[in-house]
Amino acid sequence: MQRQPTLEFWYEFASTYSYLSAMRVEAAAEQAGVRVVWRPFLLGPVFKAQGWDNSPFNLFPVKGRYMWRDMEREAARLRIPFYHPKIFPQNGLMAARVALLGSDRGWTPAFTRAVYTAEFGDGRDISDPQTILDILTGLNLDAEAVIAEAQSDTNKTRLRRMGDEVLSRGLFGAPTFFAEDGEMFWGNDRLEQALDWAIAQARRGAAPG
Amino acid sequence: MQRQPTLEFWYEFASTYSYLSAMRVEAAAEQAGVRVVWRPFLLGPVFKAQGWDNSPFNLFPVKGRYMWRDMEREAARLRIPFYHPKIFPQNGLMAARVALLGSDRGWTPAFTRAVYTAEFGDGRDISDPQTILDILTGLNLDAEAVIAEAQSDTNKTRLRRMGDEVLSRGLFGAPTFFAEDGEMFWGNDRLEQALDWAIAQARRGAAPG
Repeated sequence: MQRQPTLEFWYEFASTYSYLSAMRVEAAAEQAGVRVVWRPFLLGPVFKAQGWDNSPFNLFPVKGRYMWRDMEREAARLRIPFYHPKIFPQNGLMAARVALLGSDRGWTPAFTRAVYTAEFGDGRDISDPQTILDILTGLNLDAEAVIAEAQSDTNKTRLRRMGDEVLSRGLFGAPTFFAEDGEMFWGNDRLEQALDWAIAQARRGAAPG
Repeated sequence: MQRQPTLEFWYEFASTYSYLSAMRVEAAAEQAGVRVVWRPFLLGPVFKAQGWDNSPFNLFPVKGRYMWRDMEREAARLRIPFYHPKIFPQNGLMAARVALLGSDRGWTPAFTRAVYTAEFGDGRDISDPQTILDILTGLNLDAEAVIAEAQSDTNKTRLRRMGDEVLSRGLFGAPTFFAEDGEMFWGNDRLEQALDWAIAQARRGAAPG
């Protein structure tokens, strides 16, 4: 029997193109027969390693203006709601901690989509603890308990350790997809290629010899 | 009768993703019924305006390593030959001057594809005048005369003036596509969307009222 292909989906809550991927990765992967591992992470330390103290879309305004226009067009094409938030980039630290905590418990995909929808669909501020509380409550979770556990030292340390993994794997932006052989794909524009790669790799792995 | 849609294709000879677009834009546009205007330009002044004195793929090595891998994959997917040249970025000044000269004479698309094939298909140095001479001769042109005219003050000035147009239109990378209404699309990944936009715009222009 052939193993089910797996694709890691690395995303940052402040990232606009991660939003587009988060809203469509599950349906696309299901259709392709690929299992998705959701890996929330923080892009800040990655940008710092490249000498940037802000989003490159703010550091390079002509590129930033284009990105917002491209997001409008791509969201419309993919039939995903889109709102240009007043605050950009937003601080996604608490959201990332919560999403990481949920990754062993099955609710990270739904939580992630709800956070992105609040941010880029409704224009809310995801650094506001009330936004995260409302979302967790909407998922029928014990919101206060989840947030307390997300901010425990154990969970904080786990998120920081992911930062080391990010740098050692050559990840430099979001979203990023990894196949099981380490092949890396960057950007919402590469989701289809990443799924194709994961499938082809699983076939090779299943072949004799 | 409906006007034929037009798309401007802005490209830089040092740019890897411009190569992928140059090799496929004519067939894709013909199939879509869109006319292509080939616009060679220099990215150097654009990068300088962003504070960069080199290709961002050299300035940010993790991104550069990924780009070369992505080029291998994308070239294979699009069935375009690909060779990672020893020199990058290459100096495409003479090639750009010649391509600009040819744009009123009908041979710019063929010349452009030949230059890119030398650079990224065969790994040759396009800043070597002999490379350009060989290509022009291969197109049955009077190579010496073309190069002399390409390096005339009139033609040099025309290329420099395009630099002002580039900055005023918000262009920041290559390849870039412009529809007739000024809508801008950046990157080989947006060729299909740019063609769709050009077609939709021509339809709107042809509609009454």
